[in-house]
Amino acid sequence: PISQDIDHILETQSALAIDLGGTNLRVAIVCMRGKIVKKYCQPNPKTFEARMDLMLKMCKEAMRDAVDYNCRVLGAGVSTGGRVNPQDGVVLHATKVIQEWCSVDLRTPISDALHLPVWVDNDGNCAALAEKKFGHGKGVENFVTVITGTGIGGGIIHHNELVHGSTFCAAELGHIMVSLEGPECTCGSRGCIEAYASGMALQREAKKLHDEDQLKVEGMDMKISESVTAKHLIDAARMGNSKAAAILNKAATALGVGIINILHTVNPSQVVLSGVLASYYQVPVQHVISQRALLSVQNIKVVTSDLEEPALLGAASMVLDYATRRIY
Amino acid sequence: PISQDIDHILETQSALAIDLGGTNLRVAIVCMRGKIVKKYCQPNPKTFEARMDLMLKMCKEAMRDAVDYNCRVLGAGVSTGGRVNPQDGVVLHATKVIQEWCSVDLRTPISDALHLPVWVDNDGNCAALAEKKFGHGKGVENFVTVITGTGIGGGIIHHNELVHGSTFCAAELGHIMVSLEGPECTCGSRGCIEAYASGMALQREAKKLHDEDQLKVEGMDMKISESVTAKHLIDAARMGNSKAAAILNKAATALGVGIINILHTVNPSQVVLSGVLASYYQVPVQHVISQRALLSVQNIKVVTSDLEEPALLGAASMVLDYATRRIY
Ligand SMILES: [Ca+2]
Ligand SMILES: [Ca+2]
Ligand SMILES: [Zn+2]
Ligand SMILES: [Zn+2]
Repeated sequence: PISQDIDHILETQSALAIDLGGTNLRVAIVCMRGKIVKKYCQPNPKTFEARMDLMLKMCKEAMRDAVDYNCRVLGAGVSTGGRVNPQDGVVLHATKVIQEWCSVDLRTPISDALHLPVWVDNDGNCAALAEKKFGHGKGVENFVTVITGTGIGGGIIHHNELVHGSTFCAAELGHIMVSLEGPECTCGSRGCIEAYASGMALQREAKKLHDEDQLKVEGMDMKISESVTAKHLIDAARMGNSKAAAILNKAATALGVGIINILHTVNPSQVVLSGVLASYYQVPVQHVISQRALLSVQNIKVVTSDLEEPALLGAASMVLDYATRRIY
Repeated sequence: PISQDIDHILETQSALAIDLGGTNLRVAIVCMRGKIVKKYCQPNPKTFEARMDLMLKMCKEAMRDAVDYNCRVLGAGVSTGGRVNPQDGVVLHATKVIQEWCSVDLRTPISDALHLPVWVDNDGNCAALAEKKFGHGKGVENFVTVITGTGIGGGIIHHNELVHGSTFCAAELGHIMVSLEGPECTCGSRGCIEAYASGMALQREAKKLHDEDQLKVEGMDMKISESVTAKHLIDAARMGNSKAAAILNKAATALGVGIINILHTVNPSQVVLSGVLASYYQVPVQHVISQRALLSVQNIKVVTSDLEEPALLGAASMVLDYATRRIY
């Protein structure tokens, strides 16, 4: 029947999603229902020029591929580390995790190169948008997402909208401080939850233990050539290394206390943890909340994200929502 | 002329304002432009029954006086310590600062006794409403108020509205933690800014110093019979007591770091400090922000409230705004 032939040739409304992280630069074609059609990944260059060149090159490749996949790209969405002015599509300021990444207009060059509307927001805010559209945040009016990856980011949804703040610095949840002293942070301060509980922080502690020959325990699988990571710390703790366990316990306490600070400030009905360390932190964070939060927030649900790519999906969601609404 | 005679007999639209604090129970008649016409103050009783009886007795006295002052009372507004459900007019839960103060319906008994509509919110939220209507928050879309009195409370205005949160526990700013360990707090946790920087906390430290005979310095005016307070600690520091100065410095750092945590969460354009310690903390808090906050929030304005009675004025503002709007 004719309807089937038409279905076959109809293009799918899609988004180009770009994720600029501390480690990688990624691009994806994402279709309306959140399916990632194709994904491209490269190490994120250390300089501004190389980064912009690579990003535009990857986008153009994706645009060509999108034609083959019958995806009609409605716009580009960018998720990036750092503070972002989403109205102007500009990265205002980033910590050392992404170098040469201050006062960068992303909208103009991408829009000029691809002839597409462009939306930009920070990675934490994008992750919150992804949960809102495709994950645990569907239909939830007030929730917070905390991403524990290389760094720690976050996004706050209040009355179904992102909280950006007066200078686009809301939900910089990685830089909530839980100690007056505490470990140094990439932001220049001390005692931030990012400095205690991020992948970077755990790797720093793992390396310290390794240098003192205190990391590897009997039966632990770790090659000499392998670089030390947060995962080794977690493995060591699981296999009985009490020093590793104490470090992780402190990291989880710091993260939990930081999250309680968020609860005592905006009191969301749900916390979504995402990023590589989310499933590790879920239980201890819930425990810290039960120990140290005010009674009225102790029943908060702390869930682990089911989304494989929150930053990319959130970047795509700006396009899929705003391009069809035609407002922002 | 006739118009003058009418002016003379016209009643002034007014509110009955009630403030239930850790120390005192206060009632006031407040007219539309924020003028406190008459104020009543008693020590806040320690038991539920005595407190309710006294409150209603004071309210009835105020209602009788309001007739003499030609004030037409449109409703009663209540500011109280603890978590409040403002929709139902119920105090959900309070810390030990106000005893026997959980699951207390304030609206029904007050409304029944006075035949008036009644609005209830917590003291921090009331202080924010007071700033919004009569103080530094006039015309400011996003701001936070932090009250440093006996305890520490706060209120958050986002898009011109109070943030109450999903279980009415938003803006419990006194229980933002800035230490994983730190001093014990009335809430059961540790390291809360209330446990470092409130009047209670400073009094606790002043007493400790006094017991060790380390508080009083040469030339300091302090009678033997006098009970030791936060003010003595501040006086001692000003007169060269370095231990007192170190305690105050730590308190100010804790408060500053706690406020930065708020800035990194909701990023308001202004912080209003109120309460007896506000003017003391303003400069050090601004300094801590310049040292430890993300660049994008360092230019935040920290101001000291000009309002003499933020809790009472905020309680009144609910009546003056909502009774005339006829919605809540
Ligand atoms: Ca964010
Ligand atoms: Ca409050
Ligand atoms: Zn930091
Ligand atoms: Zn506390």
